[in-house]
Amino acid sequence: MINFTLLGAGRIGKMHAKIISEHEDANLVNVYDVNQEFASQVASDNKANIAKSAMDAVQDENVDAVLIASATPTHTEYLIMSSEADKPVLCEKPIDLDINKVNECRDRISGSTNLIQIGFNRRFDKSHASLKQAYSNGEIGELEKIIITSRDPSPPGLDYLNAAGGFFRDTTIHDFDLSRFILGDDPIVEISAFGDNLFDENAKIANDFDTAMFILRSKAGVLIHINNSRRAVYGYDQRVEIFGSKGMMISGNQTPTSVRKYTDTHTSSKEPIYNFFIERYEQAYKDQLNEFIASVKSKSKSKVTFEDGRNALILANAAYESQNNKKVVSIDFS
Amino acid sequence: MINFTLLGAGRIGKMHAKIISEHEDANLVNVYDVNQEFASQVASDNKANIAKSAMDAVQDENVDAVLIASATPTHTEYLIMSSEADKPVLCEKPIDLDINKVNECRDRISGSTNLIQIGFNRRFDKSHASLKQAYSNGEIGELEKIIITSRDPSPPGLDYLNAAGGFFRDTTIHDFDLSRFILGDDPIVEISAFGDNLFDENAKIANDFDTAMFILRSKAGVLIHINNSRRAVYGYDQRVEIFGSKGMMISGNQTPTSVRKYTDTHTSSKEPIYNFFIERYEQAYKDQLNEFIASVKSKSKSKVTFEDGRNALILANAAYESQNNKKVVSIDFS
Amino acid sequence: MINFTLLGAGRIGKMHAKIISEHEDANLVNVYDVNQEFASQVASDNKANIAKSAMDAVQDENVDAVLIASATPTHTEYLIMSSEADKPVLCEKPIDLDINKVNECRDRISGSTNLIQIGFNRRFDKSHASLKQAYSNGEIGELEKIIITSRDPSPPGLDYLNAAGGFFRDTTIHDFDLSRFILGDDPIVEISAFGDNLFDENAKIANDFDTAMFILRSKAGVLIHINNSRRAVYGYDQRVEIFGSKGMMISGNQTPTSVRKYTDTHTSSKEPIYNFFIERYEQAYKDQLNEFIASVKSKSKSKVTFEDGRNALILANAAYESQNNKKVVSIDFS
Amino acid sequence: MINFTLLGAGRIGKMHAKIISEHEDANLVNVYDVNQEFASQVASDNKANIAKSAMDAVQDENVDAVLIASATPTHTEYLIMSSEADKPVLCEKPIDLDINKVNECRDRISGSTNLIQIGFNRRFDKSHASLKQAYSNGEIGELEKIIITSRDPSPPGLDYLNAAGGFFRDTTIHDFDLSRFILGDDPIVEISAFGDNLFDENAKIANDFDTAMFILRSKAGVLIHINNSRRAVYGYDQRVEIFGSKGMMISGNQTPTSVRKYTDTHTSSKEPIYNFFIERYEQAYKDQLNEFIASVKSKSKSKVTFEDGRNALILANAAYESQNNKKVVSIDFS
Repeated sequence: MINFTLLGAGRIGKMHAKIISEHEDANLVNVYDVNQEFASQVASDNKANIAKSAMDAVQDENVDAVLIASATPTHTEYLIMSSEADKPVLCEKPIDLDINKVNECRDRISGSTNLIQIGFNRRFDKSHASLKQAYSNGEIGELEKIIITSRDPSPPGLDYLNAAGGFFRDTTIHDFDLSRFILGDDPIVEISAFGDNLFDENAKIANDFDTAMFILRSKAGVLIHINNSRRAVYGYDQRVEIFGSKGMMISGNQTPTSVRKYTDTHTSSKEPIYNFFIERYEQAYKDQLNEFIASVKSKSKSKVTFEDGRNALILANAAYESQNNKKVVSIDFS
Repeated sequence: MINFTLLGAGRIGKMHAKIISEHEDANLVNVYDVNQEFASQVASDNKANIAKSAMDAVQDENVDAVLIASATPTHTEYLIMSSEADKPVLCEKPIDLDINKVNECRDRISGSTNLIQIGFNRRFDKSHASLKQAYSNGEIGELEKIIITSRDPSPPGLDYLNAAGGFFRDTTIHDFDLSRFILGDDPIVEISAFGDNLFDENAKIANDFDTAMFILRSKAGVLIHINNSRRAVYGYDQRVEIFGSKGMMISGNQTPTSVRKYTDTHTSSKEPIYNFFIERYEQAYKDQLNEFIASVKSKSKSKVTFEDGRNALILANAAYESQNNKKVVSIDFS
Repeated sequence: MINFTLLGAGRIGKMHAKIISEHEDANLVNVYDVNQEFASQVASDNKANIAKSAMDAVQDENVDAVLIASATPTHTEYLIMSSEADKPVLCEKPIDLDINKVNECRDRISGSTNLIQIGFNRRFDKSHASLKQAYSNGEIGELEKIIITSRDPSPPGLDYLNAAGGFFRDTTIHDFDLSRFILGDDPIVEISAFGDNLFDENAKIANDFDTAMFILRSKAGVLIHINNSRRAVYGYDQRVEIFGSKGMMISGNQTPTSVRKYTDTHTSSKEPIYNFFIERYEQAYKDQLNEFIASVKSKSKSKVTFEDGRNALILANAAYESQNNKKVVSIDFS
Repeated sequence: MINFTLLGAGRIGKMHAKIISEHEDANLVNVYDVNQEFASQVASDNKANIAKSAMDAVQDENVDAVLIASATPTHTEYLIMSSEADKPVLCEKPIDLDINKVNECRDRISGSTNLIQIGFNRRFDKSHASLKQAYSNGEIGELEKIIITSRDPSPPGLDYLNAAGGFFRDTTIHDFDLSRFILGDDPIVEISAFGDNLFDENAKIANDFDTAMFILRSKAGVLIHINNSRRAVYGYDQRVEIFGSKGMMISGNQTPTSVRKYTDTHTSSKEPIYNFFIERYEQAYKDQLNEFIASVKSKSKSKVTFEDGRNALILANAAYESQNNKKVVSIDFS
């Protein structure tokens, strides 16, 4: 049984608390949030203690592991705190929005062997992951293209936008990571980015994009296309296509049931696809925790490393540079 | 070039006239219909002559072949007339609604070698036919089940119903023939029929069914299910499933385009399926004519014989006996 | 928290034990099985006690409810035992294979108000259940047809067949119940059954069928088709179609992922469908338990009653009578 | 009846000859090809005359219209010849590979009102065209994205590559035009192109690409992604997706039948998609001719103009500039 401290009890923290509580090998011991109300709600829902400080919560000797789901600017501090306490940590993405803070954090924890897993949950989605597996098995031959469609159902509010760090760092970062996950050892070397503001007034105010397209190129020549939108009226559109010398595979959208309906106005219409990430990636969040717990128990290396988190941010930054300068930007992960 | 006489210039005759005219190896020479207006319209649309009588139209020495698309009660007379004139004939289904008239006709033409092809056009549908082909190739192993769904978009009027000879002889007869087509050498030996009147007032007046289900068994033990309806609000529902020891195949519904639409109310909704038989089986009607013309040219045997027409009617009659007596009826094709 | 006694620790009992243990409102207290090894394995896996007898296990005052997953011939005895001890009981289907034993049991428990829920799990499948819901909401208008396809992936062994009570009572019983579930207040009045032995040598030895088709008619005239097979090489084929005056709905097969593959030999090929009922209906088994626990807690009436179990058996018996006498059999549920 | 002269009797010319011959309002009168064997074969297949020269063929007073399907470098000469003879002309794409020759041709015909239709046949595909129609009808609201996937089944030979003018001008030109067709009045203003040579040795020798991705931006901010490949082992992959404020539509791949197959190795596998353009766009080629004939008869303006052909080439040229200079290129259509 792994005893957890949860840092951050907002929307995503609440979800993680529930997943930990229901996990047969996990137990939620402490909850900390700067917002006392949030902390006490999540603690009471899951029969956990309310910690006085993040430090107390992390250093508690009953605690085996830490899950960081707090506001992004606190991530690096908590990562360092957990690593210094030798507590394995599962940290929500992104590590930080500022590459300098990420690099400082990287320096601080460079000597540590403490387990850090970044919360790129889509790697654990059974459908997306089975593409990677099939490619690794040689089922599509040599990889030539990756095409990722990732569209949110509806735009977030202005507060969210002001804190999120920009569309590429907040949203596309998942797709950058998913691309890197599928590519494996083959690094991304170039990017061209097109951001757009087509419909969201809040995004305009926040000087942010609501629509975007990207092309990336890997060292081996694989071409990757990503397209994002802050709004898709038909639901949370999450598709991944890989194309190679021996075939193509598509990880398509998912619906709650396998029902189709035929009426005088529609033929073969499916149930609506899942509305948003908590429904669509529910199992992926659980399997991400499974992976983390297995790594803690077996003291094995992280499958989603600090470097993975840093590299995704580097791609997002390069995307902004490409968009701003209207050119193809070369990637430097060093 | 095969010169045709067309007997019957109603809805289905008009369609056949157009198909003949557009065929590169066929030419429409004569049209005859008791309704002069129909005849003259079809003749003028297709640059053909209006014949004074069916006899004149058939015996015209410029004519190589006859297509019978007249009212059902005239079919046997025209079949005999054509055979006596040694003119190959493509005859719409059913041969007749009365098995006695069919048997008399059979006696009259028994000595003739004249080509007769019955218009079971669904045998020529590329999708349905590819099931038969795949089964013949061994792709599904031993055949164990056939399931046919055949539903019209909307019920016909009372006049049609009064002339049509009953739901089983008018509509299910296509499905009986399709079952026999797939079964090949394996004869049907038993039938159980359930007719129902659930929604159509005209059918009630005509003492007819609007809904039906059937189970048939072949000599080798293959079980066949057919279900029919006079109304399907979503269009002309035409599906065939074959199931065997090595797999299953489904010939599904078809839509005019390959477009799917995703909106806030519907996910992955296809274009409406074809509305009715003239659209859905357009190519099958053409390929039926191709087959007939090929047989005329090569003087080969008919692929859809008079006996096929007679046997389908015997099944329809047995279905009524089963429905009326609430029992399983054994089939006697002799 | 509801404390459970589990009677029967074979394959299906083992599954139920796990589901109870993982349920947040349920606790597995006692396990009993005539086979001590089975009992001790399940008890140790789920930290439960091994009971000395079914009576001990049921009467244990710590126990709130009983789950019967033992061999079918013991069901009625355990149902009576639980009811006399006033312990709510969730009992696997069928109640018994012998209608006389079912009727005796019915007499014995007739005065009791103890909750009995029969394990027709498919009623709780989200996809199948949503058809029923949509029909109740008027989405397909008047119901006219139900078509159920239910095929196992591969035939069971001879021992299973010898104990199972025949294909119709063992397998079709689920589909009879599902038909009754969808029909609601409208009772089934007629049945025609076609059994067949096409491929399974063990079924021949056991004098059983491996293939079957049925037509049933409800009082309101709804026609129901069911088709079953003991073997479908492509997996556990579970489909339900409902057809009405305003449309059609199909609850289709399900696959573990939403991935499609395109290669030089196949276009748009889905992942294999689920292999068998434990995978396909995993969530339905859980939701069945949810329903039971909710009924226990709220002391509400059963949603799947003893009469539902009895009526499904009456339909199976009538199906055998129809098959043997080659006639349509009228149903008497009295 | 429109009498045609066909210039060019190679693979694509042969196809056009057949479509003209089978059209009820068209007649093939003359055929000219520098290769006499090609000309005589096509002429004899379609009962047309072999012309001594292109000039003779075009100026023949029996001729109402010209179809240019000759080698690309001859297109502008024949376009000028036809316009000077006041013969409406349907010209295969591209107009020329050299923008200077296109511009010279443009100058030469600038005063003429002779009808010129460029052979961008995909505009006439029922599925693709219905996206444009639905967008025009407001069905997807404001347009925000277009995503075109266009992959050939297998790479052409070295001779073809050496004459084709490069991947972007030969293949992507169709997708550039299709994008412009969907956008309507909204011009493309920017492009970023990524070419790649991943698998085709001939393409390497010809200094050409076999794989490519593009992002384009319209004046109104619509983002367009195109991805191409010279080889897709599963067939000719032709998909178009449009995404807007009220929904998404996808024009998917097409198969010859509606059959799906389920076996022990595959679930729900469709028939192979069409192999290549002559099968996939057969109807589109016919409807392109219908459009042309209708324009000739009604003396109406061209629906696919010389400027459309020129603009697609300008986009292809800008794509090369982007690829070579690793930057986003602004488009100048003047």
